[in-house]
Amino acid sequence: MSEQALVLAGVNSWKLNIERANKLFSPLTEEQLLKEVAPGKNRLIYLWGHLTAVHDRMLPLLVLGPRVYPEYDALFLTNPDKAAPTLPAAPEIKKAWDEVNGELLAGFESLSPAAWLEKHDSVSAEDFAKDPLRNRFSILLSRTTHISFHLGQTALISK
Amino acid sequence: MSEQALVLAGVNSWKLNIERANKLFSPLTEEQLLKEVAPGKNRLIYLWGHLTAVHDRMLPLLVLGPRVYPEYDALFLTNPDKAAPTLPAAPEIKKAWDEVNGELLAGFESLSPAAWLEKHDSVSAEDFAKDPLRNRFSILLSRTTHISFHLGQTALISK
Repeated sequence: MSEQALVLAGVNSWKLNIERANKLFSPLTEEQLLKEVAPGKNRLIYLWGHLTAVHDRMLPLLVLGPRVYPEYDALFLTNPDKAAPTLPAAPEIKKAWDEVNGELLAGFESLSPAAWLEKHDSVSAEDFAKDPLRNRFSILLSRTTHISFHLGQTALISK
Repeated sequence: MSEQALVLAGVNSWKLNIERANKLFSPLTEEQLLKEVAPGKNRLIYLWGHLTAVHDRMLPLLVLGPRVYPEYDALFLTNPDKAAPTLPAAPEIKKAWDEVNGELLAGFESLSPAAWLEKHDSVSAEDFAKDPLRNRFSILLSRTTHISFHLGQTALISK
């Protein structure tokens, strides 16, 4: 029962940060999404796609399923903002964002506490034996702080 | 055993973010600390003191002990940056930062998984009964994302 409650707190922290990001990005127009968080820095549209790409990668990383939007990597992750000549339109990013986060949340809710403590997909069994902190739950927590990292940047935009 | 490992992942995520903040702020000169994260936004010295104040408040909030630097609230939390005519010098903030985080970590390591799930100090027993997520572990996770929120802002400063 304790373990269930600890997992619940972790998933809840994820959900709170997803909701904050959702509230920030989803209502924006195409034009508003072109704003940079600070002069010469990433645009909001890039950060939204970036979070979507990172979350999409969590599906295989947490062994919850295959990726849905692998093409987002080149647009939003492995290349910097403004490298791609065009980006998906806002409604497409919104659809990808909702879909990926929906799949993740359904996956999270299917995991037992013991399953949360299993190794994630990017660590070998040997390395995991040496460092059992490289588990799914640690990925959940680090990806939650990753959302917050970029939310802090978006908070710098003048209203 | 699962519950211990889940707590460990939460405390480890906190430690990783403290280390990132430490690596960022601790080596800076007084002059470097006066840089703003973006034009007209908070200075690094304010963010460092702000994190210290928020962490200092975690001591009573998590029922780990009394506050050490209550005077940091007016300087770094309840008033915006540039409101106070003078701020503590960098070595003083560094000392407070190290002391507060050291006390917190010692406190964290003293808590059993069941104790992490107890209510924090800002929620009544009645409200906690309705929402058991208002526990110490949730505070740990939310204060960890809070560090990351501000680290994301500091990442915007040109090198």
